[in-house]
Amino acid sequence: MMNIDSTDRQRLSEIRDLYAENLYESVIPFWERHSIDTDHGGYLTCLERDGSVYDTDKFMWLQAREIWMFSHLYNRVRPESRWLEFASIGISFLERFGTDDKGDFYFALRQDGKPLVAPYNIYSDCFAVLAYAEYGRASGDPAMLAKAIAIHERIGKRKSDPKGIYNKQITENREIKTFGFSMIELNMAQVLMQNTGDSRYMSTISEVTESILNDFIDHENNIVYERLGADGSHPDCMEGRLLCPGHVCEVLWFLAKSTDDPELLKEFAQALKWTLERGWDRDHGGIFYYQDSEGLPTDKLESEMKLWWVHDEAIYAALLLGYLTEDEQLIEWFFRLHDWSWPRFVDSEYGEWFGYLYHNGERAKSLKGGKWKGFFHLPRFLLESIDTLDLMLETP
Amino acid sequence: MMNIDSTDRQRLSEIRDLYAENLYESVIPFWERHSIDTDHGGYLTCLERDGSVYDTDKFMWLQAREIWMFSHLYNRVRPESRWLEFASIGISFLERFGTDDKGDFYFALRQDGKPLVAPYNIYSDCFAVLAYAEYGRASGDPAMLAKAIAIHERIGKRKSDPKGIYNKQITENREIKTFGFSMIELNMAQVLMQNTGDSRYMSTISEVTESILNDFIDHENNIVYERLGADGSHPDCMEGRLLCPGHVCEVLWFLAKSTDDPELLKEFAQALKWTLERGWDRDHGGIFYYQDSEGLPTDKLESEMKLWWVHDEAIYAALLLGYLTEDEQLIEWFFRLHDWSWPRFVDSEYGEWFGYLYHNGERAKSLKGGKWKGFFHLPRFLLESIDTLDLMLETP
Repeated sequence: MMNIDSTDRQRLSEIRDLYAENLYESVIPFWERHSIDTDHGGYLTCLERDGSVYDTDKFMWLQAREIWMFSHLYNRVRPESRWLEFASIGISFLERFGTDDKGDFYFALRQDGKPLVAPYNIYSDCFAVLAYAEYGRASGDPAMLAKAIAIHERIGKRKSDPKGIYNKQITENREIKTFGFSMIELNMAQVLMQNTGDSRYMSTISEVTESILNDFIDHENNIVYERLGADGSHPDCMEGRLLCPGHVCEVLWFLAKSTDDPELLKEFAQALKWTLERGWDRDHGGIFYYQDSEGLPTDKLESEMKLWWVHDEAIYAALLLGYLTEDEQLIEWFFRLHDWSWPRFVDSEYGEWFGYLYHNGERAKSLKGGKWKGFFHLPRFLLESIDTLDLMLETP
Repeated sequence: MMNIDSTDRQRLSEIRDLYAENLYESVIPFWERHSIDTDHGGYLTCLERDGSVYDTDKFMWLQAREIWMFSHLYNRVRPESRWLEFASIGISFLERFGTDDKGDFYFALRQDGKPLVAPYNIYSDCFAVLAYAEYGRASGDPAMLAKAIAIHERIGKRKSDPKGIYNKQITENREIKTFGFSMIELNMAQVLMQNTGDSRYMSTISEVTESILNDFIDHENNIVYERLGADGSHPDCMEGRLLCPGHVCEVLWFLAKSTDDPELLKEFAQALKWTLERGWDRDHGGIFYYQDSEGLPTDKLESEMKLWWVHDEAIYAALLLGYLTEDEQLIEWFFRLHDWSWPRFVDSEYGEWFGYLYHNGERAKSLKGGKWKGFFHLPRFLLESIDTLDLMLETP
C-alpha cells in the first residue's frame, strides 16, 4: 500500500475532519433548512447566500438530484428518518408534476408544478432514474425501483435522438457525440446496479469504459476530449476542440469505482494528470471551466470562470486515483486543489459553498443555489472524500 | 443649440478623427482582408487577433449583418465598388444556401453552405431583411428589395410563434415578451423605410416607440426592463428581473433617430441616464452585460463581463442623445465611456477591437470575430459617431 509520511497523514486527517464538519454541520443543514418547499412539495433551489429564496421555479435536474442525495444519505450514512421524508417530498412532487402525457420529464416547472419548459433535455430523465433508484432502496418500495428501470429503458429508446422534435442540429452534415452522455449512462448504470443488485448493468459500464478509453482519450496528444465526430475524429472546429476538465475529472472517478484492474486505473490516473496539468490556471490557480484543445478561443464567455462543481470533482478524482494507484503526484494535486478551493468557495459565515468565482478567484456570485447549482456535487464529493480518506488513514 | 466650450470642442474633434482613423484604417481593412471567403462565398467570421481563421462555420446573423454593413458603407459613405462586391459575395451565398425549403433562414451553415443548425431563430430572418434591403438599394436591383419585403412579411406571420416547433416554453403557464424583438422590429422598419422610401413602416416605428415607452420603461422605479409579462407586469423571477443595459442603449438611439419631438427625446435621455447609472460598474468601470433589477443573482455566468458591443452602443447613445437634448450629463457619459473603452478594447497592434473583457477590464478573449462578433456593431457605431460629431462640431 501507499506509503504516507506522518506530515501528509496529519494533513489528510485534518482535511477528513474538515470535510465531515462541512458536510454535516454546514452543507446538509443549509439545504434541509432552506430548500424544502412545505407549501407545494419539491425543493426550492434558487437560494441566496443566506438561504433566502430569489426564484421559485423548479428545475428538474436539481429536483431529481436532491431526491437522490437525501436518499443516498439515508442509504449510505444512516437511516435518518428526516432524510427519507425530505426525499419523499421530492418524489411526490415528481410523481405528480414531473412528466408530460408521454412520460418524458419536463425541464422546468413553476413552484406549483405547472410546466414551464418542455421535455427537450433527456438529462432530466436521466437524473430521474438516479432519484427513483436510490429512493426505491431507501423507501423499500419496489414500485419506485420498477419506475427507475422503466424510465431507464425509455431513455435507451430515445437516446439515438435524445432531443426529439427539439433537435436543431442537422446531423447529416456534422455529427458530434458528446462525452456528457457517456458520463450519465455510466452514472445511471452504477446507481441502478447498486440499488437493484442487478448485474446486467455491468455491460453498460464496460461499454462506456471502452468508449471513453478508445474514443475520448487521445493518447497521442494527451488530451481527453469532450466531443467526438461520427468517424471517431475530433473535428477541427470550435465544437470539436472543446474541452471541459470538470467533466473529465467526474467521469474518471466514476470509472475508477467500477474496476480493480491496475492497468486500467493507471490509464485513468494518467488521463487525470493530463487534464489537471492542462486545466490548471497558471496565472490565478484553479481549474478552467472550458478550454480549446489548441488554445484557440472557445465560444463560451464563461470559459475561465472557476466553478464549485469542477473543483469538487477535481479534488475527489485526484484523491481517489491518487489512493488507488499510489500516485504521489495525484496526492499533491489533491492538496493543491483543496488548498486553492477551500478559502475561496467555502462560506464560513452562512454555510455551504459559493458556486461561481471569476477567472482570478474573486467571488462572482453570492448565490448558494440556482438553476444549475443544487444539493448534489458538493455533498457527494464530501461524502466520497470522507470515505476514501478513512480508507487511506486506516492503512498503517 | 448646445454650447460646447473650447476644451470639449477640442476633445470632440480629436475623438472624431480617432474614430475616422479607426474605422477606415483599422476596422474596415481588417474585415476586407480576413473575412471574405473567396473559395465558397460568404464570410469567415471566426477570426483570431491577427485575422487568422479558427473556425469556418457560417452563422446567419453575422453573414447577413456583414452584407448590410458593406452595402451600408456603399450607400452612405461613397459608392466604392469593392464594398458592393463584398456585399454581393455575401448575398450570393445567402441566396444559394441561406434558407430551407419553406424559406426560413438557417442559424448556421458549414463553410461550403451545408446547413448545420435548423431555422429555430427568427433573428436570422430579421437580419436577412436588413441585408436584402440595404443591398437592394446599393445594387439597384428591385428583386432584392422585393425579397427584403417578402421576408419581412413572412416574419410578421411567424412572429406570434417565432420559434415554431423549436419552442420549449409552455407559454400558457408563463408568458414573457422580450425587448429584443421590439428592437429588431424597429431596426427592420427603419432600414426598410430608408431603402424602399415606403412610409408605411412609420406605423411600426410608432407602435414600437409606444410599447417601449409604456411597457418596458418603468417610470416609477427608473428601470428599463428586458422582459415583460403578458399582463404588462415585470414578473418577480430571474427571467422577469433581467436587465441588459446594452440593448437599452441600442434601442434608445434607434428611437432617437425616428423622432424630433423634444419631449420624447427627453424621455429617452432620461431612460438612458437611468440605465447608464445603474449599469456602470463602480468598482472596475464599464457597463455590465446583464443585471438583476433587484440586485439578486442572474442565471448568466457572464453578467459582469464587459462586451465591445455594449460599450459601442452605450457610447453612441450617450453622444446622440446628449447632442439632441443638449444634456451635459450625457456628454460627460460619452467622454467617460469613451475613455474607459478605448484603451481596453482597441487593438493597436493588429487592428480592430477585442470583444470580451473580464469584469475587471482585463482582456478575456483574443478573438476579433466569432460566433456572435462580426462586422456590425463596431463599424456602425464609428460611422454614426463620426456623423454626429461632425454635426456637433459644425455648430459655432
